[in-house]
Amino acid sequence: MKSILIKNTLLITLDDNRPDYFNGDILLDHGLIAEICEAPASVDPQRADHIIDGSHLIVMPGLINTHGHAAMTLFRSFADDLPLKEWLEDKIWPIEEYLTADDVYWGTMLAIAEMIKGGTTTFTDMYFYMEKVAEATAESGIRAVLSRGMIGFGDSAAQGLRETEQFINNWQGREEGRINVYLGPHAPYTCPPEYLKKVMALAEKTSRPLQIHLSETKREVEESIRNFGKSPVELVYELGLFNYPVTAAHCVHLSDRDLEILADRQVGVAHNPGSNLKLGSGIARVTDMLEKGISVGIGTDGAASNNNLDMIEEIRLVALLEKGIKMDPTLVEAKTALKMATSIGASALNLKEIGILKVGFKADLIGISRNHPNLMPMHNPLAHIVYAAAAADVEYVVVNGNILLNKGELTGIDEEKIMYEASKHAERLVIENKGKQDE
Amino acid sequence: MKSILIKNTLLITLDDNRPDYFNGDILLDHGLIAEICEAPASVDPQRADHIIDGSHLIVMPGLINTHGHAAMTLFRSFADDLPLKEWLEDKIWPIEEYLTADDVYWGTMLAIAEMIKGGTTTFTDMYFYMEKVAEATAESGIRAVLSRGMIGFGDSAAQGLRETEQFINNWQGREEGRINVYLGPHAPYTCPPEYLKKVMALAEKTSRPLQIHLSETKREVEESIRNFGKSPVELVYELGLFNYPVTAAHCVHLSDRDLEILADRQVGVAHNPGSNLKLGSGIARVTDMLEKGISVGIGTDGAASNNNLDMIEEIRLVALLEKGIKMDPTLVEAKTALKMATSIGASALNLKEIGILKVGFKADLIGISRNHPNLMPMHNPLAHIVYAAAAADVEYVVVNGNILLNKGELTGIDEEKIMYEASKHAERLVIENKGKQDE
Repeated sequence: MKSILIKNTLLITLDDNRPDYFNGDILLDHGLIAEICEAPASVDPQRADHIIDGSHLIVMPGLINTHGHAAMTLFRSFADDLPLKEWLEDKIWPIEEYLTADDVYWGTMLAIAEMIKGGTTTFTDMYFYMEKVAEATAESGIRAVLSRGMIGFGDSAAQGLRETEQFINNWQGREEGRINVYLGPHAPYTCPPEYLKKVMALAEKTSRPLQIHLSETKREVEESIRNFGKSPVELVYELGLFNYPVTAAHCVHLSDRDLEILADRQVGVAHNPGSNLKLGSGIARVTDMLEKGISVGIGTDGAASNNNLDMIEEIRLVALLEKGIKMDPTLVEAKTALKMATSIGASALNLKEIGILKVGFKADLIGISRNHPNLMPMHNPLAHIVYAAAAADVEYVVVNGNILLNKGELTGIDEEKIMYEASKHAERLVIENKGKQDE
Repeated sequence: MKSILIKNTLLITLDDNRPDYFNGDILLDHGLIAEICEAPASVDPQRADHIIDGSHLIVMPGLINTHGHAAMTLFRSFADDLPLKEWLEDKIWPIEEYLTADDVYWGTMLAIAEMIKGGTTTFTDMYFYMEKVAEATAESGIRAVLSRGMIGFGDSAAQGLRETEQFINNWQGREEGRINVYLGPHAPYTCPPEYLKKVMALAEKTSRPLQIHLSETKREVEESIRNFGKSPVELVYELGLFNYPVTAAHCVHLSDRDLEILADRQVGVAHNPGSNLKLGSGIARVTDMLEKGISVGIGTDGAASNNNLDMIEEIRLVALLEKGIKMDPTLVEAKTALKMATSIGASALNLKEIGILKVGFKADLIGISRNHPNLMPMHNPLAHIVYAAAAADVEYVVVNGNILLNKGELTGIDEEKIMYEASKHAERLVIENKGKQDE
């Protein structure tokens, strides 16, 4: 499909040079946004191969999920309400031992199906068998930031570096730029300083950005201070990691000094409110980070700790939590929350030309249907999306100018088959895991 | 429809005498639950007039929304991200001045449509023009606790008492028991002690329970202590209000002494996490209340401060918030959160024979479709509903044995017409309000 016109719609561009919302038309051509008209101006319908009547839609930039582990959909609701250590060491790690490349493929496909249906146009992944994740990304049409998770201990340490380099060579920039490969050192507590130096050398060599888990739990910070006399943020900063573009996931427990460092080094943050609550990790200092000018994007984390990949739900949590915790309803207003999930998220991931509806930017956008009781009446569309909308209200999803969700139906991938295969693979994993435990 | 059989389904009964979940059949007859079979046992299909294939469903008790102001859907996203005083005094109260009985009817219908679609089978309302709310309740088939909100100041004080008594006489117990009329003194700060005594006299005369807003904000508690030397809870307790069955909405700011009183007097609490966060009111002491044995139900509050009426979202918030705030992932586990939205909610509202799937109880239940990517695979259905499900996954809603939602479609009310009328009425309110402000 070469060019698509969405006509007579309500646009939220998140472009600061435009009104917060307005009625108009948007033309997509060759994967880019070609024109945006504010009514009464309009785009000549002759210019489009395909026209979508947008009169019942709110059209806005696609949602950018800045952190996750897609294939962990296989472990959705497998382990809940448990202490973090037990959840990880007794439940998640043992069953992950049985993961095959095929499992990761179907688990990722399931995640992608769920994410597209909920309006996500870019997702971020750090996991294993990343070639399979890249294949699923390629086939599905979604945009992604993909990292082979690297652990600096044991046999897999060197292997992680080798596979990362291979993965970059094989996939970086492919699928018309939809696939972005980043380096993924897991965390300072799993990647000792000597190892992080090797990771930095690879970043230098490949010119690729990085993502890393940072200061997710209080315990992690306490142990870092005990072992190194520094917080995780200080530790990796002093090692020089922030000389490269970095997205730091979580950043729940930050000191004022940590905040200064992240702001000064323009480190992007992937904030995962649902996962941080569910695992009892705590609540990040969102307003403090934003006030420092840090790009704080929003992420779902994996479905084993969320347990869905619903970005609208996370947007709402970001806006509500900060108001409630600080007892100030003016904090993280609707527009800020939407930007965190789009334009600020793009900055947090060091991605260009997505997150705003703007001529010349990539045609990554979503159409949310207003024809639902929960979105009636229509006083303010920004507040509607942040405080009232649901994933199921998403009716259109476009990535790189291709329609991935059309009238609520996935166009490029087979939802029934994905659900069947992912369930079958999850079932096998549970049986193998149980067999081992019974031995 | 006399009898309905849901066959081969996955049942979450929330009956402590049964497993947490099991496969089986459930038979509904004459508005009641007639039989529940655990597979391999089954109900003879000959006994049912209508059979639903439940093989893709999770069937559980209908959700009980313990607090709200239904017609405030008309003000959804009308005023957001504002300081509480400005939100109320500059936005909500002025526009409420223009409300007509017809507005309340359509606003309530919109709320009911949204609530049924999201799995709510009982809602709670405190508002104006309650005859219209009762009509909407009667027509829609939903179950409700309805109160004419009473304010103890000015001309309307005596009128509130008179209309409440009339409303009880006209509607209490009607529609096969679906309509429950309670007394609704708004709050201690709007109902002075002398007025509350008159309310209690009416409770004595009519033998009807009460609902009241209590300790929603820190400021309310501080003012009560300044004016009366007592917290709001202590104040109404010492007046004798808790000698009657009471549901107290919010209870965000409670002292240990308040907790003791609520527990001792078996006061039900309607906890509204979304609204409390959004208005910056704070976060209630949920675990402390539950540990004292207080019945803590869940409510959405009105759509002007939420901004939807999605009970599954509120259930999730209850479970996530407590874990995150206390940094303990074992708090408010999935089963507890589900009970708060069902059986405990029924207790909080002093309602009998709903909230559990149990023979002889009312046939109020919902069927949630598992055929969605966000509910695959299926390791634990309770965790699925609390942490992964969405309102849109609700496929069947039954109240008093009548199917109100069938394969996701509202059966008894006209969704398109309701959305059209509610929007039109909201538009008129905004225009009248604006006209006045421009004068």
